Amino acid sequence: MIELYDLAGADPELRFSPYCWRARMALAHKGLEPDLVPWRFGQADRLPGAPANRTVPVMVDGDRVVGDSTAIAFHLEQHHVNGPSLFGGAGGEAHARFIVAWADSVLMPGVAAIGIPYVFGVIDPADRDYFRATREKRLGMSLEAAREAAPARAEAVRPLLAPLRRTLETQDFLGGTEPSYADYAAFGAFQWLRCVGAPALLTPDDPMQGWLEALLDQFDGLARRSPVAN
Amino acid sequence: MIELYDLAGADPELRFSPYCWRARMALAHKGLEPDLVPWRFGQADRLPGAPANRTVPVMVDGDRVVGDSTAIAFHLEQHHVNGPSLFGGAGGEAHARFIVAWADSVLMPGVAAIGIPYVFGVIDPADRDYFRATREKRLGMSLEAAREAAPARAEAVRPLLAPLRRTLETQDFLGGTEPSYADYAAFGAFQWLRCVGAPALLTPDDPMQGWLEALLDQFDGLARRSPVAN
Repeated sequence: MIELYDLAGADPELRFSPYCWRARMALAHKGLEPDLVPWRFGQADRLPGAPANRTVPVMVDGDRVVGDSTAIAFHLEQHHVNGPSLFGGAGGEAHARFIVAWADSVLMPGVAAIGIPYVFGVIDPADRDYFRATREKRLGMSLEAAREAAPARAEAVRPLLAPLRRTLETQDFLGGTEPSYADYAAFGAFQWLRCVGAPALLTPDDPMQGWLEALLDQFDGLARRSPVAN
Repeated sequence: MIELYDLAGADPELRFSPYCWRARMALAHKGLEPDLVPWRFGQADRLPGAPANRTVPVMVDGDRVVGDSTAIAFHLEQHHVNGPSLFGGAGGEAHARFIVAWADSVLMPGVAAIGIPYVFGVIDPADRDYFRATREKRLGMSLEAAREAAPARAEAVRPLLAPLRRTLETQDFLGGTEPSYADYAAFGAFQWLRCVGAPALLTPDDPMQGWLEALLDQFDGLARRSPVAN
């Protein structure tokens, strides 16, 4: 049995963490159905492997505890060899590290200011003071100001998508004809914005919509069926 | 026999095109030794496959003419299967497209303003008017102003290296334990600046120097031995 500790909102069905979505898509890719354990900010000491593991996702696979979404993906690739490959071989694994690094160091910092003020609206009231203090410091502005600036910010960060956009002009997914973990690493950011009700990165007529819709449809619409904020 | 049309300077031994370096490294990776045909700006009509091919590199492999550095790499991978793989399998090929797209859409535009004024100093005098007119328009400033701004520009674009830097913290090359075409796609930009005598992107104590030095040492120092501008 596999457990995945997954960030939940005040509504426990609302699951929006971009990194947890990477892990959920990776698990589904392998045909695995984890038990999702809802977890909230402020419950760092309740995580398996705490204090080393302080954030979600954390996966418990039998007697193995794995924190960090990318470590989870590599663990699945190594230990669940019956499912489809997440990387497409050794070169695929090595090159995926770059795409994940891009998602972590360019895409996520780029969209952070868009999503964070909307996250505030969906989290448990008990977490709000902690969240406001840490996030306003990171953003350098109030959550209210960030929320007001979010649509303009979504437009401003769109050029950061250039390598993703260019790649998807020549193939359907970063993984080629099928999605790979690299797709899920990028997808997490889009699904995060979508789930918390933040402005979308893509306009409705953006050619990249096809890629996004296809990922929302994967695994019987796993990501599409998940609740979004009202 | 393989011919590679390769951009040359006023000194015909000076070879500096970032895209030609990608192709040269890819050919060497496969153990192939092309005849290098020096080519200069303004000789677009002398290229095999002109007018479809208007820029170098252009490779002639038997009866096949292949323009574009990435197309050359994929051609080599498909038709020269005895040499080491340039991509490391299907997943490696698919994911490499993203890294090449990043090199083309982020890295090269980022460093263009650093290298271009130095290219002006090494090209054939007959090409200077054409080069100045097209490049000053692209840069939005005189070549002299760009040259003056180059060191500050090198510092300013360093943060663009984040995904490359982060990946190289966990593995020696983008290709993993050995270089792949993804490494050569990024390396071309560094070798370009080096060959034309422009300010370097990396400070001498940058942890990424190990990666750069290792690529300069590949293939008996193919890239290191190539002449650089005085």
